[in-house]
Amino acid sequence: MPGQSVGAVKSQRAHFDQPLHLRSGGVLPAYDLVYETYGSLNAAKSNAILVCHALSGHHHIAGHYAEQPDNIGWWDNIVGPGRPLDTDKFFIVGLNNLGGCHGSTGPSSLNPATGKPWGADFPIVAVNDWVHAQARLADQLGIDSWAAVMGGSLGGMQALRWSITYPERVRNAIVIAAAPKLSAQNIAFNDVARQAILTDPDFHGGNYYEHNTRPVRGLRLARMLGHITYLSDDQMGEKFGRELRNSAFSFGFDVEFEVESYLRYQGDKFAGYFDANTYLLMTKALDYFDPSREDGGDLTATMARTQANFLIASFTTDWRFTPARSKEIVAALLANGRNVSYAEIDLNFGHDSFLMDDAHYHGVVDAYLRNIKL
Amino acid sequence: MPGQSVGAVKSQRAHFDQPLHLRSGGVLPAYDLVYETYGSLNAAKSNAILVCHALSGHHHIAGHYAEQPDNIGWWDNIVGPGRPLDTDKFFIVGLNNLGGCHGSTGPSSLNPATGKPWGADFPIVAVNDWVHAQARLADQLGIDSWAAVMGGSLGGMQALRWSITYPERVRNAIVIAAAPKLSAQNIAFNDVARQAILTDPDFHGGNYYEHNTRPVRGLRLARMLGHITYLSDDQMGEKFGRELRNSAFSFGFDVEFEVESYLRYQGDKFAGYFDANTYLLMTKALDYFDPSREDGGDLTATMARTQANFLIASFTTDWRFTPARSKEIVAALLANGRNVSYAEIDLNFGHDSFLMDDAHYHGVVDAYLRNIKL
Repeated sequence: MPGQSVGAVKSQRAHFDQPLHLRSGGVLPAYDLVYETYGSLNAAKSNAILVCHALSGHHHIAGHYAEQPDNIGWWDNIVGPGRPLDTDKFFIVGLNNLGGCHGSTGPSSLNPATGKPWGADFPIVAVNDWVHAQARLADQLGIDSWAAVMGGSLGGMQALRWSITYPERVRNAIVIAAAPKLSAQNIAFNDVARQAILTDPDFHGGNYYEHNTRPVRGLRLARMLGHITYLSDDQMGEKFGRELRNSAFSFGFDVEFEVESYLRYQGDKFAGYFDANTYLLMTKALDYFDPSREDGGDLTATMARTQANFLIASFTTDWRFTPARSKEIVAALLANGRNVSYAEIDLNFGHDSFLMDDAHYHGVVDAYLRNIKL
Repeated sequence: MPGQSVGAVKSQRAHFDQPLHLRSGGVLPAYDLVYETYGSLNAAKSNAILVCHALSGHHHIAGHYAEQPDNIGWWDNIVGPGRPLDTDKFFIVGLNNLGGCHGSTGPSSLNPATGKPWGADFPIVAVNDWVHAQARLADQLGIDSWAAVMGGSLGGMQALRWSITYPERVRNAIVIAAAPKLSAQNIAFNDVARQAILTDPDFHGGNYYEHNTRPVRGLRLARMLGHITYLSDDQMGEKFGRELRNSAFSFGFDVEFEVESYLRYQGDKFAGYFDANTYLLMTKALDYFDPSREDGGDLTATMARTQANFLIASFTTDWRFTPARSKEIVAALLANGRNVSYAEIDLNFGHDSFLMDDAHYHGVVDAYLRNIKL
């Protein structure tokens, strides 16, 4: 990739004492958000870009920690001096969302009312709740208006929601590999993943922290299933095909095909560190996301509330959120006369394409960001 | 549907004492096959059609049991007087495959060596093993050569395998919604389903019968996941969309969207009666299926061994085994100069289309069968 890494970075923590009233009717009396920033906020405070994370992401977007040189941010390939999110020009902000498991207040945090982990009592959070929490972080950082809010997948949905909820605070929204709402099939996959966790005997109704255990089996299944939907059929075929780990069939239930090995490895790795309650919350936020619901399902009416300019990008091989889903957003914006750039990018990595380092894809983002006014 | 039901039917049982040597290296010393027949075998014994079942199917294809009028066969809509598999003309045979859980010898049967259920010791069975076992049933019934061997999905793979293994005993092979081998994505879905079962604490290494329990959680997840892959994205959208069971979001983890209700119902129902070890065996038979493997992956070389005429049918919305997968079979047959009819049928039910009662689809099968010589 061209450009450079931002190098060693540090996480920061912001505390918020003002209660946050949630879409679910719940209230968070106080909460912390863990975040990172790269580059410098200019004097006019006009060069800030918020990067929102997807289901399993977090605040560590770019660079590495001084004491952990191998712990590279999840979107490092697009952030840094000379990269599309150019830290010589922009001030980049990434945070871990509420309900997360990477330092921000979430189900594994202590509930001040009980002194025990929130567990099952942590309220369901919606995408719009995240946007409100992110707006308070912006307030703390002195950012009235983002040069851009950006994200892929569930992160793209946050960018879209920002443009609707705080139209005057978003000058550009970059919505990648997203959809205006989930399809029945999307919800169905999420529900199977949730059922795997909820029915794991080690889940203990969400209060597994107190039982010194974790629903590892369910979380592992959820991640294995997720991975199938993140990759394209073609890519899986090219990467694994029907290759066997050994040359002959084993006629048993241990790992046999390479694709099984890959999936189980991904499942085991994820189940080793991710919090199951967070996984449940994130998938629910996805299922509930549907800003047009406030307008009786009329997305065009919803997008009339936006003021930003938009870059919408999709990937040809993404079967989770197909290009057709992005075009629904584009159509609703064009019907309102908004400035929209749309890119349908031919990349073979399915939904995960948005994380990949591809010259054409990054060129599209780079060109868009070069042209925005600060 | 036109035509009539075959009415009340009875199951029969055939016992086989000659050991069956399996693809896995295992041996079944003796076994039973449960089967049903509809119509009459003609004097020349030239009018017999074998119908092979898919993953969760069995021998009860058509009609109902006298004492269970609601227990209708799984492919009743295509079998009967005046239906495409016309019992006024054909003698139809359906059986439960080895390893099944509907009466034929399988993991829940008693292992004569131990007097306990086979459980984890039941050998892995391959599609070709089923074909050999079916050939012995044909011998018992006095059927030297099938007018047709037919099936959908895994059943279609058996029809294909018959045409390769016993070319002189199959005059027509009807292969519906199948593939010459599974893709990496197909195997991946199967592996997640298997892992759900294998990691269920109630699985007990496959010997749950002795523990008076069943891995219901895992089997339920496997079936939920399976159902997503059997339906088309469009059909799910049309059938369920984002409809809620109640009018407002519940902000919890109980059933909320209609599609969740449907999937959980299907999962619960299936987990209530199906045997988990059989599920494991069936998915492994799918994964292993690849007749071209004997020819270094050259399907054209494999299909050179066939003598039958073929009807290959696929469905436009089937994303499990797409029409492209059927065309691989067609191309390999045409390269060998075989007689092939190919139909790509526009039906909205995804992979499950092969079970549906559709005039165009059934018309294709009917026209093909009307023209075969007995």
